[in-house]
Amino acid sequence: MKHIYSFSEGDMTMKDLLGGKGANLSEMTKLGLPVPFGFTITTEVCNYFLRNESYPLGYSEELSEKLDELEHKMKKYFGSAENPLLVSVRSGARVSMPGMMDTILNLGLNDTTVQALIEKTGNERFSYDAYRRFVAMFANVVLGIGHHHFEKAMDELKEKRGIKEDTQLCSEDLKSLVSTFKKIVRERKKISFPEDPKEQLRLAIEAVFKSWNNKRAIDYRNINGFSHNMGTAVNVQAMVFGNMGDSSGTGVAFTRNPATGEKKFYGEFLINAQGEDVVAGIRTPQKIEALKECMPKLYEELFQIQAKLEDHYKDMQDIEFTIEEGRLFFLQTRTGKRTAAAALQIAVDMVNEGLITKKEALLRIDPKQLNTLLHPSIDTKANREIIAKGLPASPGAASGKIVLTADEAYEANEEGENVILVRKETSPEDIHGMHAAQGVLTSTGGMTSHAAVVARGMGKPCIAGCKEIMIDIEDRSLKIGNRSFKAGDVITIDGASGAIMSGKVPTKDPELSDAFATIMKWADEVRRLKIFTNADNARDAQVALDFGAEGIGLCRTEHMFFEEDRILYVRQMILAQDEESRKNALEKLLPMQREDFKDIFRVMNGKPVTIRLLDPPLHEFLPHTETNIKKVANEMGVDFNNLKKLVESLHEVNPMLGHRGCRLGVTTPMIYEMQVRAMMEAAKVVMNEGIKTELEIEVPLISHVNELKILREMIEKVAEEEGPLNFHWKIGTMIELPRACLTADQIAKEADFFAFGTNDLTQMTFGMSRDDASSFLPHYTKCGILAYDPCESIDVDGVGKLMNMAVKLGRSTNPDLFIGICGEHGGEPRSIAFCHEIGLDFVSCSPYRVPIARLAAAQAAL
Amino acid sequence: MKHIYSFSEGDMTMKDLLGGKGANLSEMTKLGLPVPFGFTITTEVCNYFLRNESYPLGYSEELSEKLDELEHKMKKYFGSAENPLLVSVRSGARVSMPGMMDTILNLGLNDTTVQALIEKTGNERFSYDAYRRFVAMFANVVLGIGHHHFEKAMDELKEKRGIKEDTQLCSEDLKSLVSTFKKIVRERKKISFPEDPKEQLRLAIEAVFKSWNNKRAIDYRNINGFSHNMGTAVNVQAMVFGNMGDSSGTGVAFTRNPATGEKKFYGEFLINAQGEDVVAGIRTPQKIEALKECMPKLYEELFQIQAKLEDHYKDMQDIEFTIEEGRLFFLQTRTGKRTAAAALQIAVDMVNEGLITKKEALLRIDPKQLNTLLHPSIDTKANREIIAKGLPASPGAASGKIVLTADEAYEANEEGENVILVRKETSPEDIHGMHAAQGVLTSTGGMTSHAAVVARGMGKPCIAGCKEIMIDIEDRSLKIGNRSFKAGDVITIDGASGAIMSGKVPTKDPELSDAFATIMKWADEVRRLKIFTNADNARDAQVALDFGAEGIGLCRTEHMFFEEDRILYVRQMILAQDEESRKNALEKLLPMQREDFKDIFRVMNGKPVTIRLLDPPLHEFLPHTETNIKKVANEMGVDFNNLKKLVESLHEVNPMLGHRGCRLGVTTPMIYEMQVRAMMEAAKVVMNEGIKTELEIEVPLISHVNELKILREMIEKVAEEEGPLNFHWKIGTMIELPRACLTADQIAKEADFFAFGTNDLTQMTFGMSRDDASSFLPHYTKCGILAYDPCESIDVDGVGKLMNMAVKLGRSTNPDLFIGICGEHGGEPRSIAFCHEIGLDFVSCSPYRVPIARLAAAQAAL
Repeated sequence: MKHIYSFSEGDMTMKDLLGGKGANLSEMTKLGLPVPFGFTITTEVCNYFLRNESYPLGYSEELSEKLDELEHKMKKYFGSAENPLLVSVRSGARVSMPGMMDTILNLGLNDTTVQALIEKTGNERFSYDAYRRFVAMFANVVLGIGHHHFEKAMDELKEKRGIKEDTQLCSEDLKSLVSTFKKIVRERKKISFPEDPKEQLRLAIEAVFKSWNNKRAIDYRNINGFSHNMGTAVNVQAMVFGNMGDSSGTGVAFTRNPATGEKKFYGEFLINAQGEDVVAGIRTPQKIEALKECMPKLYEELFQIQAKLEDHYKDMQDIEFTIEEGRLFFLQTRTGKRTAAAALQIAVDMVNEGLITKKEALLRIDPKQLNTLLHPSIDTKANREIIAKGLPASPGAASGKIVLTADEAYEANEEGENVILVRKETSPEDIHGMHAAQGVLTSTGGMTSHAAVVARGMGKPCIAGCKEIMIDIEDRSLKIGNRSFKAGDVITIDGASGAIMSGKVPTKDPELSDAFATIMKWADEVRRLKIFTNADNARDAQVALDFGAEGIGLCRTEHMFFEEDRILYVRQMILAQDEESRKNALEKLLPMQREDFKDIFRVMNGKPVTIRLLDPPLHEFLPHTETNIKKVANEMGVDFNNLKKLVESLHEVNPMLGHRGCRLGVTTPMIYEMQVRAMMEAAKVVMNEGIKTELEIEVPLISHVNELKILREMIEKVAEEEGPLNFHWKIGTMIELPRACLTADQIAKEADFFAFGTNDLTQMTFGMSRDDASSFLPHYTKCGILAYDPCESIDVDGVGKLMNMAVKLGRSTNPDLFIGICGEHGGEPRSIAFCHEIGLDFVSCSPYRVPIARLAAAQAAL
Repeated sequence: MKHIYSFSEGDMTMKDLLGGKGANLSEMTKLGLPVPFGFTITTEVCNYFLRNESYPLGYSEELSEKLDELEHKMKKYFGSAENPLLVSVRSGARVSMPGMMDTILNLGLNDTTVQALIEKTGNERFSYDAYRRFVAMFANVVLGIGHHHFEKAMDELKEKRGIKEDTQLCSEDLKSLVSTFKKIVRERKKISFPEDPKEQLRLAIEAVFKSWNNKRAIDYRNINGFSHNMGTAVNVQAMVFGNMGDSSGTGVAFTRNPATGEKKFYGEFLINAQGEDVVAGIRTPQKIEALKECMPKLYEELFQIQAKLEDHYKDMQDIEFTIEEGRLFFLQTRTGKRTAAAALQIAVDMVNEGLITKKEALLRIDPKQLNTLLHPSIDTKANREIIAKGLPASPGAASGKIVLTADEAYEANEEGENVILVRKETSPEDIHGMHAAQGVLTSTGGMTSHAAVVARGMGKPCIAGCKEIMIDIEDRSLKIGNRSFKAGDVITIDGASGAIMSGKVPTKDPELSDAFATIMKWADEVRRLKIFTNADNARDAQVALDFGAEGIGLCRTEHMFFEEDRILYVRQMILAQDEESRKNALEKLLPMQREDFKDIFRVMNGKPVTIRLLDPPLHEFLPHTETNIKKVANEMGVDFNNLKKLVESLHEVNPMLGHRGCRLGVTTPMIYEMQVRAMMEAAKVVMNEGIKTELEIEVPLISHVNELKILREMIEKVAEEEGPLNFHWKIGTMIELPRACLTADQIAKEADFFAFGTNDLTQMTFGMSRDDASSFLPHYTKCGILAYDPCESIDVDGVGKLMNMAVKLGRSTNPDLFIGICGEHGGEPRSIAFCHEIGLDFVSCSPYRVPIARLAAAQAAL
């Protein structure tokens, strides 16, 4: 049994044994890259050690051999006063667990070797800084002494020296800290700091093994569902230094441009510097091209190798290199992060270059990343000052005058002004204001609050839950962070990052590249799921069509009810004391709804249009504050007290579980009758214009098949009265209650299609209202009770199980059942993959998410 | 193929072919009882007729034969001027569908035969009344002429005659009505009223067949889930008349006393009367014993036969008989309705008599009926005036002064006054008032409203949803129906019937008979389910023990939090700005909770006690109205505005889906820690008194296994700190969210027991809040969308499916899992049967339902 592998002995496939990092270092070595020598102690040694608190037979001998080999290869020696060998000791499990386990750098430093380092680097300050860091790190990781002891010592020194920044400490200071730190070790552990590098190494390896079972790592594995018995490998690697004079240096490079995707070697370097100097930004690095001039041979080597790496990994690489006294070393190569635009360009180029297949190209792009391409964005070249940050609830950037009510937004828009609607939170009463505003900003609520959901649907930027905002409605003013604003002041919001800026910051419109179009075309070739959109009006429908939508999966009629010119009749309908006056009000609404539908049918011209019958409880259409009730009572010419009493009588303790959805249709059939009539009349009119219609009438909130049975009869009665109908129409239902899933076999007998409403379904299944979850859900995801927010991505174990059951039961009694999803999850890639897996026919999402869904559906099919 | 069966040819087993009524008439005939002759046309003829609109081959001949036989047997002849045969034509399906299909009486009457009837009965008025009824009924049922035409004619006649009541019409009037009615038939149908009795009969049979498919009958079958292709049989039977002079009569008798169960022949009769005279109450019937004197031979015959009937059916019989000119006829025998006390007595007696087995005795008692035995009841002998009725939400009767707030109830109780708490609705803030009151009366809410549920738990009478109550809190007065009351006026409520009475009406305490104890003992011998109780304090626990409870299945700690002496500390705990002050408040609560638990442990002495950790959202413990906030702010010495802000910040849109249950425990572990500590300390203390404890710590509202994992660790940590513990304790969870059912396999790994919380589970599964459902749920059950209210009886198709899944999944990973139910359904017989069926280990119900559950569990096991 082999316990330790030199980097030259392993490869990429040996992740289980060598861990991810070890396998990758081996692979680079195997490719012939100049990687600092080193070796990997296997995960099996770790597991043996953790079980037995001892090492397996033969391990110690192997370790000695490997250390000899390392000294020999590097021509550096542990503890040498001339040529000391320093090493890093790093953990590396089969799966990436960034920051969860321990790492020790510059192991091998002691009072002797630090002198050699000073000589080599000519940099006493750097050397003592490295030394004091090593002592503190070793003392913490290996000896278990709290960080704060060392921080305290450093603070005391700084105070004594009257300085504030670590960087102001001189080499003498750092040297004295080494002594102080060692003294701390002595006092707390009653031992001298180990000066023998091999002793240091033995202890460090043991500490890394043990770190597999520290609390942080265990929690991380629990959260991510990783097994606890994989163990970690330990990588021991020679340190190399880029700060050993002008023949040394360090840099980072990309095989292609990570911002644009252009096929051009791209990077930066610094002469006589360590990696952290590049990061710290104290010196400005040079472009990689400059290396060609100052070290032409090395540049050529670097260039050849980067090409080879990309060829080998078949993806754009992010490379870290160090030049130590004229020798080039590669410390890392990994798939490079890139912008969405670059991702598309690189994927398409690589297919054209024959490097990867179309399939690989599709799988390589993160669908979520496309989001940034589809909305206006802040011009990154512009001056900007971020005054506060909230949750990035809906992407896009917008500027406008602050307004504090929906009515103001509406009026300002009428006068051609751009506005940002700033509210504590929004409600359905604010829809007209949200439509009118360029963007929405709220001080409470989360990623799935009303403001966030509606704004995403509208494709408008939204920042939600910015706790730093304090609104004073009376005074028509607000504070954002420590800045004061008045209504009318201009701000800019960036929904992609959550940043709020003062004044107007220039934005850039999205430009969709040829590469985007190509990827979308390829995606359409392979995906099985149809991509529909959630659109409540012709404008949104057109946006979605332009993005490639194949139909409307959800058209919410309640948003139409809130529009300025109809809310009066809606209220008359609700207030009606008898059938006759209710009928009158509905007759006023009918032609308006008909117009809405006509416009939508015209835009969609023959593509399916799924229209949901009225869903929210009626009290949502009524005013709630004393002031608003007064206003509406005046407008309608009804008695204030009567109106107030009615509003109170319609109040619900748990409105989400109240008198809404098909329950309205069952108890007050007239409303649904009007809506169905409006749909059918609209379809007949556009027929005559030569426009086709595929009408899918959708009944919300079905819990029992009998509800659907009754409403199907009602719809069929209207159809008979309106007939003959020369267009296609179907009747289906939302599946958004657990009971609908559980009895889907019964319900499917009365339905032509199912559309999962996973927003409600998730809330019912968890017994959790997303409006109220902000008091505990963030805690749940933070401490790992939930791996992710189930309102954002489908909870596969719970909600997903219900969905799967509903699909199987539904198709068991109605094999032709057309099934899809129209909740928020319909535009979320992980959820789309799940929908594909359980055999849905379509997903429906907001217009701006259609391209994301197209790509995610393709990936799911691959 | 035989189409028609004489009563002498069939028997009880032929219900499919002869329908229920036909089979019963045959059975009586087979027993040799003098049943008026007749025959049954089979359901198959009906089905044939409905399919083909014609009769099967040979049917007409058979019918002729049967009619001849009938005339021969009865020695009466169709259309005869001397001895006319009159018959009834009745529907009768395989299952009872009372009132859904049509019946025609006195068929065979025409201008000739009515004269014979007059002669026979010597009662012209009766004869013409029967005739005009027959004509109208025939015209309606057979010819389809609306009832209102005949009613109109009658009203016109009454107006002309200047009278108000039908009974004031003389025989001349009735005779003229016959002509008028026939004229209506002529005018509306252009035919003469059929005078030929055989023609009448042919048409009537056809009409009865067709009535199988009338809307009423179809709806009824839909609601009850009956098949539509059973068809109905038709029973043609000779009419007999008890009003043919002093040798005729009619009566109703029971084989045992239906009120007490005493084994004694019991009944009433009238000489020279029809059955309807007994019902109408115009004449006072005589006791059956009197028949012995006036018709000793007939009495003897009747007595023998009733004994034979009881012997045959092995149950107490309700018998209808008619004496026609000295001949005794039996028209019906059926299982007699009886009081709960009688049901118990009869069952026990019959076992002792060897008539039935213990098993049969147990199955014969409707568990729900026991309810009336377990609570005080209105003394039926007392004078009483019912002023309004509400829903009978919790049984029992009580009188007291009206109080309008919980505080008043509390104070009055302190002063030893009996009060009835009258509220629009109750909330958890009212608990102390409900405890203090003798009964509760609300103007809104249903059978499962807060008031109803809590009152049933407390075993206090409650009437809910009495819409006739208008409360004026300011004026401290109220209207009930059209009567005005002031706070302080005395009323009496009967929670068993929903009746509200003015003043104090005497009540009777329940007396549990020996028969009750015997039945309970037999029930305990056969049932498999354990019967636990829901009890929040020692008093309730004792009541439940007396009723035979085997443990506490649900002890709600929140009710303890509401008690006068602790609500202050609860509020301090909620308002605490830092850990320290929260800890201080909890330290005040700890000894109080410990006392609660000690008392309960002492009463239960070793029987399992399941204690649920705090469940409701914290805002339930805070005041909500401006006035109350002010009061509490004063009491606590905190700033009004701060308190108001806090109350507002804790407000939830959907509190049922909010920050409650284990979510509290996860985000604020201190509260649960205090509660667990109080339980364990209490158990340790009573241990030293020699009292055993089986503590089952229950975590509410688990949706994800990780919640339970974290809380289990917390509980185990407290146990370790409190250890060593010398009593048994377990950790389990409520299963009350759909997700908990769906992932029960995961959750079971962390749980020692499951207790279904079917109240919440039902609400989540249906997406329906029982607080808000009153706006649509009554409509749903009325029009048959739901066959029953799922908050009252478990919805087997939906909620039941989830439960079944949870049981199977849970036991798959934890075979020792102890599983029960502690929702409201735990005391409902149909639900208990379901719980038995899916293999639960226990049901838990309110103390007063324990006997019901014991019996229902026994029935489920049989």
